[in-house]
This record gives sequence, C-alpha cells and structure tokens, in this order.
Amino acid sequence: MIVLFTDFGYEGPYVGQVKAVLAANAPGVTVIDLMHDAPAYAVAPAAFLLPALAAEFPLRSVFLAVVDPGVGGTRKSLVVEAAGRWFVGPDNGLFEVLLRRGEWRCWEIVWRPARLSSTFHGRDLFAPVAAALACGGSPEAIGCVPVSPTRSQEWPDDLGEVIYVDRYGNLVTGLRAASVHRGARLGIADRSVAFARTFSDMPAGHAFWHENSNGLVEIAVNRGRADLILGGIGTKVALIASDHHA
Amino acid sequence: MIVLFTDFGYEGPYVGQVKAVLAANAPGVTVIDLMHDAPAYAVAPAAFLLPALAAEFPLRSVFLAVVDPGVGGTRKSLVVEAAGRWFVGPDNGLFEVLLRRGEWRCWEIVWRPARLSSTFHGRDLFAPVAAALACGGSPEAIGCVPVSPTRSQEWPDDLGEVIYVDRYGNLVTGLRAASVHRGARLGIADRSVAFARTFSDMPAGHAFWHENSNGLVEIAVNRGRADLILGGIGTKVALIASDHHA
Amino acid sequence: MIVLFTDFGYEGPYVGQVKAVLAANAPGVTVIDLMHDAPAYAVAPAAFLLPALAAEFPLRSVFLAVVDPGVGGTRKSLVVEAAGRWFVGPDNGLFEVLLRRGEWRCWEIVWRPARLSSTFHGRDLFAPVAAALACGGSPEAIGCVPVSPTRSQEWPDDLGEVIYVDRYGNLVTGLRAASVHRGARLGIADRSVAFARTFSDMPAGHAFWHENSNGLVEIAVNRGRADLILGGIGTKVALIASDHHA
Repeated sequence: MIVLFTDFGYEGPYVGQVKAVLAANAPGVTVIDLMHDAPAYAVAPAAFLLPALAAEFPLRSVFLAVVDPGVGGTRKSLVVEAAGRWFVGPDNGLFEVLLRRGEWRCWEIVWRPARLSSTFHGRDLFAPVAAALACGGSPEAIGCVPVSPTRSQEWPDDLGEVIYVDRYGNLVTGLRAASVHRGARLGIADRSVAFARTFSDMPAGHAFWHENSNGLVEIAVNRGRADLILGGIGTKVALIASDHHA
Repeated sequence: MIVLFTDFGYEGPYVGQVKAVLAANAPGVTVIDLMHDAPAYAVAPAAFLLPALAAEFPLRSVFLAVVDPGVGGTRKSLVVEAAGRWFVGPDNGLFEVLLRRGEWRCWEIVWRPARLSSTFHGRDLFAPVAAALACGGSPEAIGCVPVSPTRSQEWPDDLGEVIYVDRYGNLVTGLRAASVHRGARLGIADRSVAFARTFSDMPAGHAFWHENSNGLVEIAVNRGRADLILGGIGTKVALIASDHHA
Repeated sequence: MIVLFTDFGYEGPYVGQVKAVLAANAPGVTVIDLMHDAPAYAVAPAAFLLPALAAEFPLRSVFLAVVDPGVGGTRKSLVVEAAGRWFVGPDNGLFEVLLRRGEWRCWEIVWRPARLSSTFHGRDLFAPVAAALACGGSPEAIGCVPVSPTRSQEWPDDLGEVIYVDRYGNLVTGLRAASVHRGARLGIADRSVAFARTFSDMPAGHAFWHENSNGLVEIAVNRGRADLILGGIGTKVALIASDHHA
C-alpha cells in the first residue's frame, strides 16, 4: 500500500501526475490519499501529524510524504524506515517526530531520474522510489545510501500547538492524548477547556477537548466551529491545570 | 463495489483512513467516492439525495453512508438492504427515503471492533462491516441482528426544498422530476421558474428548472449561479401552477 | 489507463458517477483523476493545458476530457487519436491544440446509450466510450465514424495568457517554455518578470518565471501568491524583451 501525505492540495493536476507514475511503476498496488492538505510550507505541524496518522496503517506501507518548501534547493531526499513502515520525502524535519519514537534507519536517495524537474520532486523522484519500495525493492537496490538525517533537536516531544484544522473547524493539536490527564484543562486563546468524551456529551456551542480518533488531543465545539472562536494552525495550547491528582 | 457517501469533506485524513480499512478488509474491491460533501449535520437532505444517486449503481453495491451528527451518542448502527443494494450507516433517518420506496430488510450492527473511537465510526465500525458485505458476508455472519429502524413518518415523500448545491450553483431539490408536470412552474424565493429541457435551451442568465441527470428537479441559471440569486440548502421550493392540464 | 480531465470540480457526485460507469465497463483498468478544476466554461485555456499534461502519460492512455459549456446542444461528440493517446470529449475546440501538434485521427461518436441525460454526457456517453477504448475496442467497433473536427484556426500556437492558477497561486501560462529564451522577460499586469530556475533561487516575495514541471512557462512568487499580485485566468502575458541575443 502506498499512502500519500502532501500539501499539494486536492485541486490541480499534481496528485494525478504522482498517481500516474505510481500506476506505471507499481501496477496493482493500492494507493491511498491520506491527506493533501497538510499545512503548506509548515514542516513542524506536519511532522507531528504524520506519526499519529501512520500508526494505523499496515506494516510495510510506503508513505510518500511531501511538505517541501525547499524543493529544488540543497536539502537531501530521504528514505526512512520507522515503526515498520517506509517513508519517502525531503530531509527537512518532516520525519523528526517519527525518528524520536522508535528504531529507525535512514537512506539518502542518490539515484536521479532521466528527467528531474526543479519543482516537482514528488512526481519525478519520490514517486518512483516509493513505487519501487512498494514492489519490495530495498533502498540499496534503488540507489539509496545510508545517511544521518538532519535533526530538529530543539522541538519538544509533544507540540502544544494547533497542527491541523479539519473541515468542521476542530483543532487538532500536537499533544498525544495518552499523555494528558483527563482531569486537565487546556489553555487556548485566553480560554480554558475541559475534557469530554465526545461531542454528544457536550451542549451545543461548548468548547471541550477530547482524544480524537488518531490519539491526539483535539479541541472542538459541539455543533460549532472551534477555529472561529479559538484560532487556527499555530495557535498555542497549554496544559494549565488538573482537577485531580492522578 | 463499495460506494462512499459522507459529509466528511474532501479535505483531511478521514476519507483516506476509511479507505485504508476497506483496502485491508476487502482487497481488490473497487471503492468509489460518490460524494463527501453531503450536507453536514443535515440528515433529511441527505436522505432524499441518497436514493436518487444510488439507483444507477450496480446491484449488490455496498454504500457506506455517513451523515452522523449523533456519533458517539446512543443512536444505533444499521445495515439496510433496499432496492437490491446494501447500505451501512447510522440509524438517524438517513435511510428513511430508501425504506419508503420499496422492499427492505434492516439489521442492527451489534459487533464491535477491538478499537472503537467515539468520533469516527465511519472508519472503526461502518468500514469493516461494509468491507465484509462487499466480500459476500451476510449481515448475520458479521454480527448483525434484525431490527426495526427508527422512522421519520412526518417527512413527505418528495421534499420541496433545495437539498444540494453543486459547484456550478445549481439547486438540486428533493422533488422527483417524474412526478412534476413539465408545464408546472416552481416557486422559489418569490420567483417562479418554468421548465426547460437543458441549459442551452435558455438564454444566459435565465433561471429554469429541469430534470437533472439523477431524475431530480433541479433549478439552474444558464451560465450563472442559481444559488446566488435564489438561495441554498433548505430553501423552500413549491409547485405553484401548471400551464397545461395534463 | 483512463485519465479524467474535467471542470466538474472535486465536490459533488459527478466524478463518482463517471467512475462507477468506468468501473462497470472497464473493470480493473486504472483510473487517474488528472484534474477536475479545468477552467469552467473556458475551452481555450483547457485546450492549451491538455497537451502539456497529456505528454507524460503512457501511450494508449484514454483521456476523458470534459469542458463542455454546450452540453445538450448541437455540438458533436468526438474520439481523437493524437500523440499515441486517445481523447474522448466534445467537439468545441478542446482538442484544437492537440490536433496542431502532430498526426491525428478523429471520429464522431454516433452511438447513443439507452439513457442519455441532457446535462451529463460525461457519465452517459463519454465514459462508456472511454471504457471501451481502454479495453482495446476500436472507434468503429463502438459506434464512431470518421469526421473532421471543428477547428479554431484563429488561435495562436502558444497562448500568451494565464490558463491555470494552482493552489499556491502560481500562474500557469499557455506558452511552452522550450520556445522562450531564458533571457527573456515577460510582461504581465504592468510588471516585467525575469527567469529563475526555481523558487529557492529567488528571495521571498519576488516574482519570476520558470519552466514548470509540465514544460509550460509559469509565473510565481517565492513563498507568496502570484495571483494576488498579478491576476488570474485570462490575464495577458507578453514576451517583452531579451537580455541576451541567443
């Protein structure tokens, strides 16, 4: 299975062009559009989103992950094996959070295609490599060499920020819910919000936090839009208090 | 064939996560995105849209239908067999119009997955059931028991409202075109509009109604946007007169 | 491989309905969504976009190409073989640029399906024909007869206009980059912009032109939106000078 995680957007020809390369190079392999609205140009939010989403995919899935403001510049191109899955994309921090959460191996893609556009490595470089991995190829066999990826040591292990706003206006944070006590309140935009199990446990219009379906802390308003009240990507979220001593 | 009919939107990871479950549980089965912009939270419009769209799909297709404002609450989860096709989704009226238009059987899904998030039954509950049905499983074999669905007896048989606005601004109504005389005018927003066979039969800028490609009455403006002039989802549409006596 | 190039938009049921027909008539054939946001009603921009995108698809791919403001009127329906690929769509100029750039053959689709809606030939007429071609059928075998397509002789060979705006606000033009000297400046909206190889070669906020990943001249602003500064689809783009004599 090849899984697409990009900031290409859903419109325009880019995703289709990537898929055409995948279909030609890995015929019969299932391709899943996981998301194409990863925060554009914003590597850190995407880096915290990726491991939360990747965890539920089958082992040996290949993620083609492209949030790549530096395309055409000097950043390296990587293959990462982490948590039993493959990741193909730029060496810009996008895989930082994956690397912290378990064993990993990393390769630089030194192979180059006959045609390499300066702006569309997703199609020209990453897609053929992802297709080869999905067909069982080893990184070495497809022109990769072991490398130490660039690290972003200054990042926290959980990011107290909004990293994604979904279509309902729910605010996904970079905090893993398993590490936050259910009695804790979260501070955001001069407000503090308490835990609720799910939307229907709250009156309409009330803000709360809950564990979303990917294990992240999410701030929502039942039948309302949290983003309009509390802010969008990059808004800070702080653990401010706990009602109980665990 | 598995057909997705949801209000998840096209953006974000939700659709991809559902498809990953389908791919793992029903490998090789074609999955079609019918629509992911069913009116959010609006069960009745979706309920009138679904049978009109479902009719053209092959027999034994499995519809994963999710417009589910009460997810995580007490509403039941259903499998419905109607018009030779399967439908999987919440017991909240979404299948009401299907049930009225022919023979049906209905089951409650009592099976529960190892992990059931409180907000994403589409992925955790409905998708595995839809996959099992698409692979030929019977409802009983996959943990369903016969049940009487909740009915919405007060709904009309045809809904005189706008139930969907397409990207061109055309207004799809809940009225079946076969039941409206071609000489009838329709009242909407203090205007009345007459029938025309198709867009190119009307001057640019003129509003008219026609039978859309799914057999529903649709109000449109040739080379213009009817929604900007006449209103959006929920706008009332009334049969106001007939030029001819049929 | 069947490739979809339409102005249907990504939302709503239209694309899914086309795919259901393709799945039923060409089971197992890969279907790629190339783009569904071709400029609506704007045949000329779409006609210049199509050959640039089609060139990288495998030979014998079948393009279902629908930008069709005259649907339901008197325009013919065509099958075109050009550049080793198949194209199915309306006879309204959409294939004009393809026809100019090499050998071609053209047929009118005289076959009609049992049900032909007046507004959705993409689903009812073009999709079954595209499916049959993808399965190896000849145009004659599926009810097509040779025809001379309607030509748009007055169009230039390269279109000095913005023909597409991508999600980043980049302005794709109808000029092939291979025919523009790298020393040339382009005039757009009272500005003139110079060539740069790629985004990261320019300071943030600076407009430039480059060869995009499909071989077209594209005007962009590094980490900014060119469309907000310079204009959208239809904006004129002129070759104004050359710094060097090639």
